[in-house]
Formats: sequence, structure tokens, C-alpha cells
Amino acid sequence: MKRKLAVVGAAGRVGRRIIALAVESGKLTVVGAADAQGHPDLGKDAGLLAGVGALNVPLSDRCPPDPDVVIDFSLPQAAGNTLRHCMEQKIPLVMGTTGLDAEQQAVVAKAAKAIPLIYGTNMSVGMNVLFALVGKAAAMLGPDYDIEIVEQHHRFKKDAPSGSALTLAEKVCQATGRDYPDCLTHGRSGKDALRQPGTIGMHAVRAGDIVGIHSVICSTLGETITLSHTAHSRDTFVGGALRAAEWLIGKDPGLYSMADVLGLK
Amino acid sequence: MKRKLAVVGAAGRVGRRIIALAVESGKLTVVGAADAQGHPDLGKDAGLLAGVGALNVPLSDRCPPDPDVVIDFSLPQAAGNTLRHCMEQKIPLVMGTTGLDAEQQAVVAKAAKAIPLIYGTNMSVGMNVLFALVGKAAAMLGPDYDIEIVEQHHRFKKDAPSGSALTLAEKVCQATGRDYPDCLTHGRSGKDALRQPGTIGMHAVRAGDIVGIHSVICSTLGETITLSHTAHSRDTFVGGALRAAEWLIGKDPGLYSMADVLGLK
Amino acid sequence: MKRKLAVVGAAGRVGRRIIALAVESGKLTVVGAADAQGHPDLGKDAGLLAGVGALNVPLSDRCPPDPDVVIDFSLPQAAGNTLRHCMEQKIPLVMGTTGLDAEQQAVVAKAAKAIPLIYGTNMSVGMNVLFALVGKAAAMLGPDYDIEIVEQHHRFKKDAPSGSALTLAEKVCQATGRDYPDCLTHGRSGKDALRQPGTIGMHAVRAGDIVGIHSVICSTLGETITLSHTAHSRDTFVGGALRAAEWLIGKDPGLYSMADVLGLK
Amino acid sequence: MKRKLAVVGAAGRVGRRIIALAVESGKLTVVGAADAQGHPDLGKDAGLLAGVGALNVPLSDRCPPDPDVVIDFSLPQAAGNTLRHCMEQKIPLVMGTTGLDAEQQAVVAKAAKAIPLIYGTNMSVGMNVLFALVGKAAAMLGPDYDIEIVEQHHRFKKDAPSGSALTLAEKVCQATGRDYPDCLTHGRSGKDALRQPGTIGMHAVRAGDIVGIHSVICSTLGETITLSHTAHSRDTFVGGALRAAEWLIGKDPGLYSMADVLGLK
Repeated sequence: MKRKLAVVGAAGRVGRRIIALAVESGKLTVVGAADAQGHPDLGKDAGLLAGVGALNVPLSDRCPPDPDVVIDFSLPQAAGNTLRHCMEQKIPLVMGTTGLDAEQQAVVAKAAKAIPLIYGTNMSVGMNVLFALVGKAAAMLGPDYDIEIVEQHHRFKKDAPSGSALTLAEKVCQATGRDYPDCLTHGRSGKDALRQPGTIGMHAVRAGDIVGIHSVICSTLGETITLSHTAHSRDTFVGGALRAAEWLIGKDPGLYSMADVLGLK
Repeated sequence: MKRKLAVVGAAGRVGRRIIALAVESGKLTVVGAADAQGHPDLGKDAGLLAGVGALNVPLSDRCPPDPDVVIDFSLPQAAGNTLRHCMEQKIPLVMGTTGLDAEQQAVVAKAAKAIPLIYGTNMSVGMNVLFALVGKAAAMLGPDYDIEIVEQHHRFKKDAPSGSALTLAEKVCQATGRDYPDCLTHGRSGKDALRQPGTIGMHAVRAGDIVGIHSVICSTLGETITLSHTAHSRDTFVGGALRAAEWLIGKDPGLYSMADVLGLK
Repeated sequence: MKRKLAVVGAAGRVGRRIIALAVESGKLTVVGAADAQGHPDLGKDAGLLAGVGALNVPLSDRCPPDPDVVIDFSLPQAAGNTLRHCMEQKIPLVMGTTGLDAEQQAVVAKAAKAIPLIYGTNMSVGMNVLFALVGKAAAMLGPDYDIEIVEQHHRFKKDAPSGSALTLAEKVCQATGRDYPDCLTHGRSGKDALRQPGTIGMHAVRAGDIVGIHSVICSTLGETITLSHTAHSRDTFVGGALRAAEWLIGKDPGLYSMADVLGLK
Repeated sequence: MKRKLAVVGAAGRVGRRIIALAVESGKLTVVGAADAQGHPDLGKDAGLLAGVGALNVPLSDRCPPDPDVVIDFSLPQAAGNTLRHCMEQKIPLVMGTTGLDAEQQAVVAKAAKAIPLIYGTNMSVGMNVLFALVGKAAAMLGPDYDIEIVEQHHRFKKDAPSGSALTLAEKVCQATGRDYPDCLTHGRSGKDALRQPGTIGMHAVRAGDIVGIHSVICSTLGETITLSHTAHSRDTFVGGALRAAEWLIGKDPGLYSMADVLGLK
């Protein structure tokens, strides 16, 4: 019997893809779809909104009481309601909403004592696998390998390097004894730009609407190893959230990470 | 005190690079350099032959009696002498000579009861790390990820795919339950070339004098993970042999692999 | 004053992106949006359908009489109506609908005597630039460079290699005197897979939902030149169609190509 | 009948590869091999020095009087002799020696009035083709494409970006009206690192002993075009010099470039 999924933020860009991919995967039944009070699509069929045909699940402003698991990709101000609801009803929760403030994060920590809960800023399976592999790789290769990280994102991204690039660098540093973030170098130029041993060069390409490419380059005399992740679309985050949701059902209360879901610990 | 290294096949293309990189690394002292009887360079200084300045080590047709470790990159017919010599003198041996026949491989097995010995067809540190990572990565990612392997080599290479590409595929299969080599697909073309689930597409690019590039592509809906190895030159194999040699000194008798050297087990 | 655009197939996946990107670019005003008779969205605002806010342009089953240019991404059976309408009203037409049969193509040829018309199977600016560059590059490099083409597409694609990969190969052959398609090689494997001079190796990677990556590798002793195109999303085709539409306004009747639009001849 | 080649700097790293590749190509006969007075290999067979078997051409400290063409990869202080010799004997000259000072460059200019002469800092055929293509590509694509250049070199390289990366950027600027070098950006980092329109991001990866990789990335909404050059070894410069030498024979006096050799003008 398929497990029952409710989606909060169901009319949003990510929410609609969660419904669409859940239907396509055939592993979870969508039994609830919620979004903010006053949302213009309230009452419409969530499947039609997601472009996968009618599901007989109208968009509601309330999360249903009895799904097996909830995925929330809404807004920080809405996330509190979802957390309280799941705590009260003892429903496992995948919280994909980012940008929570300290108070909201405290609610996450509290909820995790009552229910199994995953909260993470990057739900992509592949990026989490890369997080797990990159330290192992750097440690295996040893100190003779220079590390450089090249990440590519769209022209609209304000910060550099990306949060994921920094996490990759941090994983390398933890595994190899480099000093994070002191060993990071941004932008070599000039006549005296010689590479310093033990540094990690960071390179932030910004162009077009590239969703996200991260490459960790490990090179020594004779060879280069490269570990790369390319996001094709936001579906990569959706796929991770669905995988996390399935995994979470039946777990003990606690705060879990994507690394737990993927068995990477 | 630096450990003492002897090189067999020291006048060959790889042997000269072993001497050069050993000198440059400063971790091993070259105390002996041997090559075949009648070799035109016998008696010449091995350091001069290797282009790193005089070492006061003349090229000889005999392996010296007392190094701490021997590296052999000679020819199958010469490898037997090295094996016997190291067995008798209890000298650890890195046997990099490939193409040994069954009888010669039996001598390797016998020698490994008396001395610590490494015998492997790919001494590159990076490629061995990739061998270790690729199965882990495929298992972490799970069955929704399609695997394709693209390898690139020079136009003179006769066989396809490369031995290392096949090993990579084998590691993926072992880790994920795919059937090796039945699941391999070579060369899609035509109107009905639809990918079959669970297969691994193999692609052998042959062009110019590419030393060797291997990419394992793991892709699903939303993202692609790529693990790649690029050999810049034959120095990559030399570096691995030197690392193996240092590691081997002081070990118990036995047949070791690069995975042992790198702590990948 | 901004030029007036009408879109046929406006409720389809590509049509909605044409409207969205036309609005975002600010270079064309959407004055008409048509789709098939009986389409469930008839009467709805085309801007709302495209997710860019109301445009006061309802989806209609008729192309408006007086736009400055029409873009059609509908279905082969509908394309005939658009062609006749544009001929009668003397409206320039970008025909992006593919899969036209011989009879429909004859109508295209006839229409091109009355109006300026572009008909092409790949409207991506970048891919057309690559078509233009690849022959020049191969001719400049000369016969010592081996050519290999690696293309990557999603797991659902039935044919291999892609049409664009074949066009790239054809451009190389035209420029260098290779025999198309006789010189193409698909899938090297085995002990005797030695590269034959003058051949072009074709490699069709199929994995995940890769939109489309094409790489032309030109390699000789000492170096490799690679020309690549990566489609991030179908927007790449939409962008090309819009560029073609702007260009077409005011041209003499005739059948034009993307190479004309881009000034590549 | 094969044309006669003399090599100056014939015992050097590049000089030996020129002899080796000339012999292997079969297109030029090596009739002379010169190096500095007092060089320890004077009198030895140039073919043996180059590792391609005896040529009956002893290494001399004088350039022979009557080759059809000379290639010089020696040192700045020696280049003057070669220039004078070729002027007097009316021998076409490929001057690959870099680092000439203003006075020596004046001699080059003077020589070019008497003989056909090529002087260039990058003799690689492929890189010169990339120089020729990159401006065309950027102009065809137009201002909606962001340009970023990523170059990779060995850890020992002091300057950044590489000279070739700067030339690539300059070609893009010339073709598209960008301001060189004002539009170049080195190293984005921080919360306010938003890409500015019209800039070119430069990224200098330094790792291992990478010979040289240059990628020009052109990306807009929907797609990315990448033009790349990878040097496998210094043979890439040698191949270009040999191609230039063959081309130069029989030309009128003048200063030519690799773009002339390759017909790129």
C-alpha cells in the first residue's frame, strides 16, 4: 500500500514539482495540498495545478490531519504552523523551507524531539553524496594533491562562492587538516600569483541561467581527479525531498540529515 | 634517514622517470639501477640517463643486494630474475611490469609468501582512488541513476574500452547488483536505441595522443554526478609506484594492492 | 515602438515560454495568442497562462490579422492554417513546428514566395553558431586532427545519435572532404578497435533528463580543441525563435535560416 | 623531395622534440642541429639525442649554410646569431625563442625585411585556431551572452591569468566592443558579488602539473557554448612550429604570424 503524502506550499514552484514527481514515481499518494490563506488557487485541484491531471485533492489552506509524511516548501512565516501541526499529529516532516530565523530554528529543534524531522538547505541527493565523497577522496589522495573548486551559477546570483561550494571546501578541510576558511583563495591575478601550498582556490563563474555546477579538482604531478555535480533543474531538490520523505516514515523522533537518508554516516 | 631504492628497468622510459621523481621527491635515495644484459647504456650514470644530474650510480645488469625496496618496470622475461633476487634477499618489491603469463604470475604468488609485494596493472594513485569511490557513489545514489562511462585515449590504442574503464564498470556492478559484463552497452545508434534500465553505456573516444581520461557519469531526473580521472603523463604511474615503495618497507610478507597502500579497504 | 507578436500554439509548453520570454525581453508586444479549437484554456489570459501576469490577450482559436510577426510552435496538422493565414495577410512567420510531412513542407516552400519565413528544426542560437564554427575549426586544424562527437541526452530519447550531432558531423565532413555518413563510427569495442584515419567517432550518452549536450572533440599529437553546446532548458529554442522573429520583420519574401538571422553566411 | 630543416637549440627540451616529430612526420629532413658553444653534447648524433635513432647529423655549434628553413628554440642571447645567419643566407626562419628584449625584437623586424620570418609566443595550432574562433563566436552570439574564461595551469606558474587567457579575452573584446582590459573581473567573493553586464570573469586554476587548459564559456538564458583548448604536452608547440616551417618555405620576405600559416585572416 502506498504511503500518504501531504505537501505544504503546494501551489509554489517547488511544491507543484513535488506533487508532479510524487505522482510520476508512483511511490507516494498525494492526499493533501496546502498553501497560504487567501491564495488565489485555493479550491483548485492540486494535480491540475501541477500539470499531472486531476487528483481529486483540492488546494486547501490547512494541512490534512492524517498523512504518513509532510513535505513543506513554503515560506519561513508559514513553516511554524506546519511544525506545530506535525508535532501535534505526530507526523514525520521534511522541512525544505530555508531562511528560518533563530526563533523558527528553535521550533525545529523542539519539534525534532516529538517527531522524525529533516531540515536541510540542500536536499539534492547528488550534492549530498558529493559532500560525503569529497572528504574521503581528499584524504585518500593526500597532501600532494592541490584542491581547487570551480562553481558555476546564473548571472542573478548575488553571493559568491555558493553555499554548497563552501560546504565542499569545509569537508575537504575537515578531512585533511586544512584551516577553514583561512586556506581559501579567491581570484588569483598579477605577476606574483603563485599558488601557496595547502590553499584551496575558489572560482565563482556567473553566466546565463546556469542552475548550478560544482567541480572539485584534485591535481598533482601526473594526474587530476575531478568530482562534479550538475543540477539540471530544481527537480534535483524535489527528488531529494521525496526520497527523504519515504525514508522518514516509521523513524524515531529526532533531527535527521540527508546524510542519514542516504546512509552516508 | 632516507630509505634506499633500487630500480630495475632503469634505462627504460618509466624507469628513468622513477629515478627522476625519486630524486626530486627527496624521500628515497637511489642506490641501484639495473637493466638488461647488453643494454647500450650499461655503466653510464643512472642520474644522467634520467636527466637529473650525476648520482654516482652506474647502470648495471644486476640488482644490488641491499636496498630497502625495489621497483621493477622491465619486461616479463626479466621480471623473474627480480622476483627471485628479492625473495632471496628479503627485499620488498613493487612489480610494475605488466603482461606476465600464468607461470610468471605463479612466481609472483610464491614470492608474496616470502616478501611484501605489490603487483598491479594500474599504479596511479588517483585511478585507484576512483576505483574505491565509484562503487560507493553508485550505491549511495541508488538505482534511479543511470551510469555511463566515457573514456578517452590516444589514436594508437588498439583495444576498447580501456582496462581501467572496465574495472570502473565492474566496481559499479559489484556495488549495485548489476550484472557484469552483461549490462554493458557499446555504441548506441539507430531509431530504436532507447536506453534500457540497468545498463551501463560504454564510450571509447580515440583521438590524438590523449594519455587517458575516464569519466563515470551518474545521472537521474534533475542532476548529474561525474567522477573523472585525467592522466597528464606517465608520471602518474610513477608517482603511484614510489608511494607504494615507501609504504611497502617494513610490511609483513604478502601480496598487497594499491588499495592497501592508500588505506582504501 | 515595440513590434507586435502573435504566438500560435500559445498554450503549449514552448508557446507559453515564448510569451513569457517576449514579455521579459521587452522587445516585442504580445498582441495575439492562439491554440487549437476546443482547447480548454480558450478565453483565458495568455499572460496568466504563461505565468507573467495579465496581458489582456485572451487565448483564441484564431491568429489575429495584423501582428508584425507570427511564431508557430503548434502541431503539424495546425501549421497549415498558420501558413495560409500569414500568406494571405503578408505576415512574416517563424515556423518552429517540426515533423511536417512532404505536403506540408511544400506549403512552406510556397509560402516562402509570398512572405519572409524561417523554418528550422533547431532554433537555438548557440547550436547554430556551433554549426557555423565547427566546419571552420576543422578546416583550420587540418587532417591531422581526429574528430569525435560526444552527445548527451535524457534517458527517454529513442534515436541516436541526435539530429544535431549528425548535422555537426555533416558540417565537419563538408569542410574537410570526409565522406558523410560513411566515415561515422558508432561504438568501438574489442581487441581490434583501432581508430581508422579520417573517421568520426560518434558517442551517444543517454542518462537522466539531460536536455542536450554536444561536444566536438578535435585532437592531435599534443593538443585537443573542444567545441561544446549545452542546452539548459527548452528556453534556448525559445530565445532563438524570438531572435528570428525580430530579424524577420521587414525582410523580403523568402525562405531564411537561423544562419541568415545570425549573419553566419 | 623532402625539404631540409635545421634546428637551433637542438639539444634542448623543445629542440629534441622538434627533431623527433620532424622525423616521425616524414615531411622534413633534418640536415642540421645546432646548440651553444661548449654544450656537452656537441658532436653527438642529433637523432640519438632526440631518441629517434641515428640521423648522421652531429650536434654542432653552428647553423648549417643551406637548409630550406630554420627553427630556433634557443635562448634570447643566442637568437641574434640565428637571425643574422638566416638574413645573410636568405633562409626562412621560425623564431620560437621567447623573452626577446626590445633590441632583439628590432633585429627580428629588420630580418623580416630580408627573409620570411615567423615570430610568436604561442605556436600551438589549436590555440591559434581558438584565437581566431573566439571573436567570431562572441560576435555571432551577441551581447546577451555572458563571457567567462577559466584557465588551468601547473602549480609552478607565477603569473595569472595566463598570457593566452588574456589574448582570448582581448579577442572577445575586439569583436564585441567590450573595453579591454577594464572589463575583466578577477575573483568574485562576498555577499555583493553580482555579475556586472559586459564584464568578463577570469579564473586562474593552479594545480598539479597541468600543462594548460583554456575554456571560454559563453552563456545566456537557456544555453552555454564552450570553446576549449587543452595542451597535452609541449609537443603542441612543436607541431605548430613544424607546420609554420613548411609553410614559410618559398614565401616573400616579411613578418608572418601563425594566423597567416593557418589561413585565418
